[in-house]
Amino acid sequence: MDKKCELIYEGKAKIIFASENPDLVTIKFKDDATAFNAKKKQKFKGKGILNCSITSRIFELLIKNDISTHYIKKINENSILAKKVDIIPVEVVLRNIAYGSLCRETDIEPSTILKEPLIDLYYKNDNLNDPLLTSERLYLLNIMEVEELQQVKQLTLNINNILKPFFLELNLTLVDFKLEFGRDSSGNIILADEFSPDNCRLWDRNTKNGKIDSLDKDRFRNDLGDLLEAYSEIDNRIKNFISFT
Amino acid sequence: MDKKCELIYEGKAKIIFASENPDLVTIKFKDDATAFNAKKKQKFKGKGILNCSITSRIFELLIKNDISTHYIKKINENSILAKKVDIIPVEVVLRNIAYGSLCRETDIEPSTILKEPLIDLYYKNDNLNDPLLTSERLYLLNIMEVEELQQVKQLTLNINNILKPFFLELNLTLVDFKLEFGRDSSGNIILADEFSPDNCRLWDRNTKNGKIDSLDKDRFRNDLGDLLEAYSEIDNRIKNFISFT
Repeated sequence: MDKKCELIYEGKAKIIFASENPDLVTIKFKDDATAFNAKKKQKFKGKGILNCSITSRIFELLIKNDISTHYIKKINENSILAKKVDIIPVEVVLRNIAYGSLCRETDIEPSTILKEPLIDLYYKNDNLNDPLLTSERLYLLNIMEVEELQQVKQLTLNINNILKPFFLELNLTLVDFKLEFGRDSSGNIILADEFSPDNCRLWDRNTKNGKIDSLDKDRFRNDLGDLLEAYSEIDNRIKNFISFT
Repeated sequence: MDKKCELIYEGKAKIIFASENPDLVTIKFKDDATAFNAKKKQKFKGKGILNCSITSRIFELLIKNDISTHYIKKINENSILAKKVDIIPVEVVLRNIAYGSLCRETDIEPSTILKEPLIDLYYKNDNLNDPLLTSERLYLLNIMEVEELQQVKQLTLNINNILKPFFLELNLTLVDFKLEFGRDSSGNIILADEFSPDNCRLWDRNTKNGKIDSLDKDRFRNDLGDLLEAYSEIDNRIKNFISFT
């Protein structure tokens, strides 16, 4: 079998293949959508192309703003070339507004604007249902060192400081987002995974009636309407803004 | 109705009554045992007396070791007199050995001896099923200030440093324990609630076959044998040791 096409890992929304360069991988975005730890599943023809397009542009924006990431370039409509990293098994969630699981796990009212962004860490472990981790438990599980966690939190805040005003320009509220980080071949922590409406909440600010219009995976999670239409809208706003500036 | 007997609060295992002094309360230990957020319930005639006896002696020991607590004195076989406090709605759990919920919420093997004690904070909220709290969520919910949490953690470590060697002298391993703190009329944080086999794990070190012998509420949680026998054993070992020294 061609070394180039060797499957390294298949996740819920992406497949990782080896590339000719052993330090690089090809990441293909799938059309599958999953929610509630894959209890809910559906295929959306074209989602992979949209998420590849959105992720590529967001990562290019972050790199321009001096964030170290695994992203090298987009290689076709649904695949990117990226540095091979050891993924740190933690979902880093930054919240600007309380919504979703935070409101189920505490008694904070949905849509509460947080004075400071809140960072939550979840253990990437499907068997355990991705449980919330305290920093102390994270150290106990030897997932990260103290300094590494500080670095990850600072990177996440920096990314929010870039993306929150960016989406505001597109008339979108960045409610929250999930990031994953990895260690590159030198052991440096860099941003990995993707940035797409699969992993963040984006609310349209153009609505007239004051109701929340979710242009993200909540369309699928909570049956709020056409998922592809929402993802296309995000992709178009980003494209138009970038070609305009 | 006599002001003295006015019920202030009834919990799962204790009832709090007003006393003649408005700054003091009477706490009566009930015979009820509950587990799994009260999904499992049973009455054990005599448990209240045993927990009152154990709590009194443990709090007296802590006070002798300069820990500030709500405890004033034992007033009858199942009641104590205590300072009235505003309870902080957090269960502070210190673990010397991984067991129970920690092992369900992470993939740490049960019975793993932790290099450092682990402190977990749980939000006292039955509707939410007492969820784990990160420090950041605790601040967000305005439950404690940063300095107060540091103080609570230090107090908890100090209490472990007193009780772990104490129980070792009684041939018992202090696996973990749950504390609750309150603010007194001057706003000082002091230890409140109780210390009994309802809220800690104590393993007998006298067993010959190497199997765990739980002398605590795990007897009820996991149907491991006579609860009252275990609680009596703890009470007797404490009594004998204290009368001996």
